[in-house]
Amino acid sequence: MENKLKIYNTLSRKKELFQPINPPHVGMYVCGPTVYGDAHLGHARPGITFDIVFRYLRHLGYKVRYVRNITDVGHLVNDADAGEDKIQKKARLEQLEPMEVVKFYTDRYHENMQQLNTLPPSIEPTASGHIIEQIELVKKILKNGYAYESDGSLYFDVEKYNKDYKYGKLSGRRIEELMQNTRELAGQEEKHNAFDFALWKKADPKHIMHWPSPWSEGYPGWHLECSAMGAKYLGETFDIHGGGMDLLFPHHESEIAQANAATGHDPVKYWMHNNMITINGQKMGKSLNNFITLNEFFSGKHKALDQAYNPMTIRFFILQAHYRSTLDFSTDAMKAAEKGMHKLFDAFYLLDELKPSEKSSVDIKAIEAKCYDAMNDDFNTPMVIAHLFDLAHILNQVDSGTESLTKADIEETKAFFSTFLFDLLGLKDEKEKDDSELIDYLMKTILGIRQEAKTKKDYATSDLIRDELAKMNIQIKDTKEGAKWSFK
Amino acid sequence: MENKLKIYNTLSRKKELFQPINPPHVGMYVCGPTVYGDAHLGHARPGITFDIVFRYLRHLGYKVRYVRNITDVGHLVNDADAGEDKIQKKARLEQLEPMEVVKFYTDRYHENMQQLNTLPPSIEPTASGHIIEQIELVKKILKNGYAYESDGSLYFDVEKYNKDYKYGKLSGRRIEELMQNTRELAGQEEKHNAFDFALWKKADPKHIMHWPSPWSEGYPGWHLECSAMGAKYLGETFDIHGGGMDLLFPHHESEIAQANAATGHDPVKYWMHNNMITINGQKMGKSLNNFITLNEFFSGKHKALDQAYNPMTIRFFILQAHYRSTLDFSTDAMKAAEKGMHKLFDAFYLLDELKPSEKSSVDIKAIEAKCYDAMNDDFNTPMVIAHLFDLAHILNQVDSGTESLTKADIEETKAFFSTFLFDLLGLKDEKEKDDSELIDYLMKTILGIRQEAKTKKDYATSDLIRDELAKMNIQIKDTKEGAKWSFK
Repeated sequence: MENKLKIYNTLSRKKELFQPINPPHVGMYVCGPTVYGDAHLGHARPGITFDIVFRYLRHLGYKVRYVRNITDVGHLVNDADAGEDKIQKKARLEQLEPMEVVKFYTDRYHENMQQLNTLPPSIEPTASGHIIEQIELVKKILKNGYAYESDGSLYFDVEKYNKDYKYGKLSGRRIEELMQNTRELAGQEEKHNAFDFALWKKADPKHIMHWPSPWSEGYPGWHLECSAMGAKYLGETFDIHGGGMDLLFPHHESEIAQANAATGHDPVKYWMHNNMITINGQKMGKSLNNFITLNEFFSGKHKALDQAYNPMTIRFFILQAHYRSTLDFSTDAMKAAEKGMHKLFDAFYLLDELKPSEKSSVDIKAIEAKCYDAMNDDFNTPMVIAHLFDLAHILNQVDSGTESLTKADIEETKAFFSTFLFDLLGLKDEKEKDDSELIDYLMKTILGIRQEAKTKKDYATSDLIRDELAKMNIQIKDTKEGAKWSFK
Repeated sequence: MENKLKIYNTLSRKKELFQPINPPHVGMYVCGPTVYGDAHLGHARPGITFDIVFRYLRHLGYKVRYVRNITDVGHLVNDADAGEDKIQKKARLEQLEPMEVVKFYTDRYHENMQQLNTLPPSIEPTASGHIIEQIELVKKILKNGYAYESDGSLYFDVEKYNKDYKYGKLSGRRIEELMQNTRELAGQEEKHNAFDFALWKKADPKHIMHWPSPWSEGYPGWHLECSAMGAKYLGETFDIHGGGMDLLFPHHESEIAQANAATGHDPVKYWMHNNMITINGQKMGKSLNNFITLNEFFSGKHKALDQAYNPMTIRFFILQAHYRSTLDFSTDAMKAAEKGMHKLFDAFYLLDELKPSEKSSVDIKAIEAKCYDAMNDDFNTPMVIAHLFDLAHILNQVDSGTESLTKADIEETKAFFSTFLFDLLGLKDEKEKDDSELIDYLMKTILGIRQEAKTKKDYATSDLIRDELAKMNIQIKDTKEGAKWSFK
């Protein structure tokens, strides 16, 4: 495979040529959802961003193992590590077993991701399913001296770690600043420093999700699961780790610290972070209560929405911004995305109707090359889309006769346009979605014509219509309220 | 809720009145699939059988927690416990990580179960996700003296257990017979008796799925996962345990032994077993290589099939036999099921067209009561279907005027017919499935009429058609090959 792909590495803060550790294999780990509620627009972005990475790497010929976890335990409510487990809180409210909540929202998350046409990851491990691996990791960190026990709980010793390794290499935060900015919080007495993070927490008696460990009946700290599962399925050092920018600190910084403390080396070669989606400039999220769930988008049932939006419109809307840029949501932007996407589909279908010329007035290969250049430039999908809009414009000019394409160039265009539109950007034309509504309308039209024919005593036409419909097992009954149709 | 439901309990070998342990809560555990290949018709039967149980118990007002596990590890290839892990074997063949195979086939299983319109279980725990719970269970059994260690592996001591508890209470097998019928097998030297079963197996160096334990780096025995996960999510004693008859021995018998050995009492009040699906009298299964996968049924791509079968046809085919009877597959039986199901749908739709009479000549409430009686008689779905066929016949007679129903009785019929057909039997009318084909045909019909009108110079009609279609964003282009349509 040609090696032109550059990826922006958060670790080095620059674009680097992508050189996997064990080509043609690529290992990619992406932080997945915490399944205690419905996925919102903010969840769609990493889902789609890393779907593009997955699709493009496979397109380039790499054999990609894509691991995306399900956080079903251990994600604490507040950053001080003292809060209740989020899932457990919801479960207690609903009087359900936590795993019942997990199953419910995992299924809905899968459905949403399928609606957005993201490919399923290769492995989808759960935090609760890897408690042993997390305990083993804690043991290593403890053995190497970078953790301490405090009343049955284990904490990562950030200060000690910082002496041997540079803490903060990903986020750029310096431990000296953290020391100045932290203050003692209630319930944090167990920690040596406020910025130390939990590796294992002893469960209080009310805590219903807990497992035995050498230290206490408890549960793993949130940062642990990704370190343990990444290493298990992709090895101690793997190629790409992705996630939302909001996970950069403390989550990903802690993953790096945990890996170094356990193995003595960094876990990941390329760190990738997608930026946030904002609403009126504000981050969208559960805590701000300004989020719109994907199901609300698809149904249009939310006060901020004026209509239902097709999942593909959301996908296109997200792809129209570079994944490292913020993206501000508005219904106007959604409508523009919907219109733009259909412009591309129409241009693609137009290819079937173009009349070939003897000569081409346009350099199709140059446009194709530009699209690849854009993808190779850190997955620049808005640039790809801009080139495809140019292409759409050209195809319309060919249709109206002001530009020309040979048969071979039309075929070439069809092939690469299809590759980018459907395979790489992962779009689907879902116009046929409201089929039943359309069928009702078409039947109404046909029955109207039939009525008209009967009124004119044109029985040849009305009988013809009845016979044609019968071939599709459709029967017509004339009632007082007019003709009605049904399947036989 | 009325308490008339009787369930055949494999343990007592008779129908018993269903009395849950903690009403209105019901705990039900069903053995789920081993995810190393596509689900076949044999997997559809427990899926549908216990979906009916789930639906009916909920209909009766019970709050049901339905747990169905995913066996993703530890299911040994041969009964002698010496074989390779099935999943691992496949993974090594395909050069994949076992969990990659697991993810692939779990997704496909979910899709198939959704196509069959089975409701998702409340919790779907995986064996690999509950290694700790399985180790804890082994510890209890060991502590109580019913297990022994042998070179890092642990075995259940059936002979010792039989002295304190009656071994074989579910299957009726006596340990004396087992002793006579067993012979020493290669690789079984570690066991005291050939019928002892593994609780924990030390992994050989090639074994890639293994976890640390107090005894060895290894993996749990197959029977352990259901005991551990059933107890975790439903309690040490719960109401219903279901599965295929082929799991009765040794799997379920071993579950009972493990639970008694660990807790001193039986784990389950009602044991339910669905019978097998045969092809020409032979059991359908992977080992016999005579299975047809569900995807093959849905696509029709299998040498034994003459057409594609709708998932609902398969569901109806399965429901036409009582779950405890064997069911022999043939394409004739499938076609009969397809026809029968549509007869019921047609009768249901006919309800909208019936003319109400002053008096009813039929006792609708008696038919409804018969349907409930059949369900209460150990989920006798074929009997329910027979009553619904009688009802369909009556509704056709009402339509032709030889029987009569009042408006109130028509409404009553609509309500309970809908309850049984859609909510309890879980059928869906999927005639609308091939929508795009139908739309194409309707458009062809409309464009044919338009062409006819134009030929006759009836431009009023042809313009009307164009305008009506424009309202649905359909545009017509007249080309040399005739009129073509597309969405705007």
